Amino acid sequence: MANLSVVLSPALFQEYEATDAAIVVVDVLRATSTISAALEHGVEAVIPVSSMEEALDWQAQGFRVGGERNGQKIEAFDFGNSPYDYMRPDLQGETVVLTTTNGTRALHLAQAQSNTIITAALVNLSAVMDWLETRQQDVVIFCAGWKNKLSLEDTVCAGALVDGLLKRGFTAQDDAVLAARTLCHQAMTDPKKFLLAAAHRKRLMRLGLKRDIRYCLTPDQSSVIPILKGDRLIADGSQNR
Amino acid sequence: MANLSVVLSPALFQEYEATDAAIVVVDVLRATSTISAALEHGVEAVIPVSSMEEALDWQAQGFRVGGERNGQKIEAFDFGNSPYDYMRPDLQGETVVLTTTNGTRALHLAQAQSNTIITAALVNLSAVMDWLETRQQDVVIFCAGWKNKLSLEDTVCAGALVDGLLKRGFTAQDDAVLAARTLCHQAMTDPKKFLLAAAHRKRLMRLGLKRDIRYCLTPDQSSVIPILKGDRLIADGSQNR
Repeated sequence: MANLSVVLSPALFQEYEATDAAIVVVDVLRATSTISAALEHGVEAVIPVSSMEEALDWQAQGFRVGGERNGQKIEAFDFGNSPYDYMRPDLQGETVVLTTTNGTRALHLAQAQSNTIITAALVNLSAVMDWLETRQQDVVIFCAGWKNKLSLEDTVCAGALVDGLLKRGFTAQDDAVLAARTLCHQAMTDPKKFLLAAAHRKRLMRLGLKRDIRYCLTPDQSSVIPILKGDRLIADGSQNR
Repeated sequence: MANLSVVLSPALFQEYEATDAAIVVVDVLRATSTISAALEHGVEAVIPVSSMEEALDWQAQGFRVGGERNGQKIEAFDFGNSPYDYMRPDLQGETVVLTTTNGTRALHLAQAQSNTIITAALVNLSAVMDWLETRQQDVVIFCAGWKNKLSLEDTVCAGALVDGLLKRGFTAQDDAVLAARTLCHQAMTDPKKFLLAAAHRKRLMRLGLKRDIRYCLTPDQSSVIPILKGDRLIADGSQNR
């Protein structure tokens, strides 16, 4: 049977060398929720970049770019990192560039170690579980966290994936798998109260992003699997459509 | 009020620079349980060393040395890493050298960043909480984990400390604090079942160390606070006795 590991923050990812496993990058507030939203609403591809400089280079080439640093929009950019910024008719079929604090960093670390990278969030939770079950490949769930630290919402999302995958016959490879599952079970008894305490949620609330938070914490709004092909994330299967 | 942070594995400790906080190193199976046991039973000081070479250098100088790699005793050494190895009349007042896989590594990382380092385990849980409450200093709880990964038993012990300290007015500084507390609450509903799943516990069970595990998972057997002074851990206050 396929094996299942959880990495709770980028600092812990150093343990992973080149792997045959599929790496599932999770950044619930908000990168991977926003990527799902964009592809679900007709954006053709999202190019994740690590630095503002790189994003501005793409912008100079005519691409529209979005992103944030510390939860806030960057002035020179076309959009922020809100899922709602990417649900626009004029972006149908377009390729956009996204830079975020933690999510794109995790994607690039993952890309150096595996050929199969997808993104997950609560908004595409069930779709990701189905996709992983079908492949029966080993899985590493990689939480983007917050500046190398653990984040509660990413851990809970990882736990929800773990819970589903263990029930579907995957084998836990480390204690982080069990820790994430326990946190998820606990969160499910009272999700609002549980995530009320999450530090990054508090940061975003201060920034007035209540609507974004509600979107990001609502499961199964999208059946798209964002998969990394070269330098961009596309909906898996969209090449064959 | 004093602040409280949790570091779930050495890989996550890189975020911490020189700090005024007291660092509490936790390695329940078995380093910090064994250190408590030794000082509780009359050993004068424990010198934690990172490498086997260093331990053998101390041995050549006449010190008795103990330790393990991957849970097993090292042949040239006088003892293993069992708490019971250090509860001996002939070690009363002696200084011993201890090298372990994860605990001593965490101690040395901590030592580079703070002047106040103590060790905690379930066996001296309440004593550590009382000691920290009295000082009202910021606190970083540093789980030694297993080879840079999270370990369930250390996280649960950290969670038990967190639970007590939050009730005593400390302020949570990050999501890892809340994650550890939740795991501890969950563990408390059925501790045996919960830790049954812990990977390192399984490793030690395979090595026939059931008696050690029972000792290490029994809270409040010791009131000693092991504190790092120079290159050695002594019982806090023992200099004034």
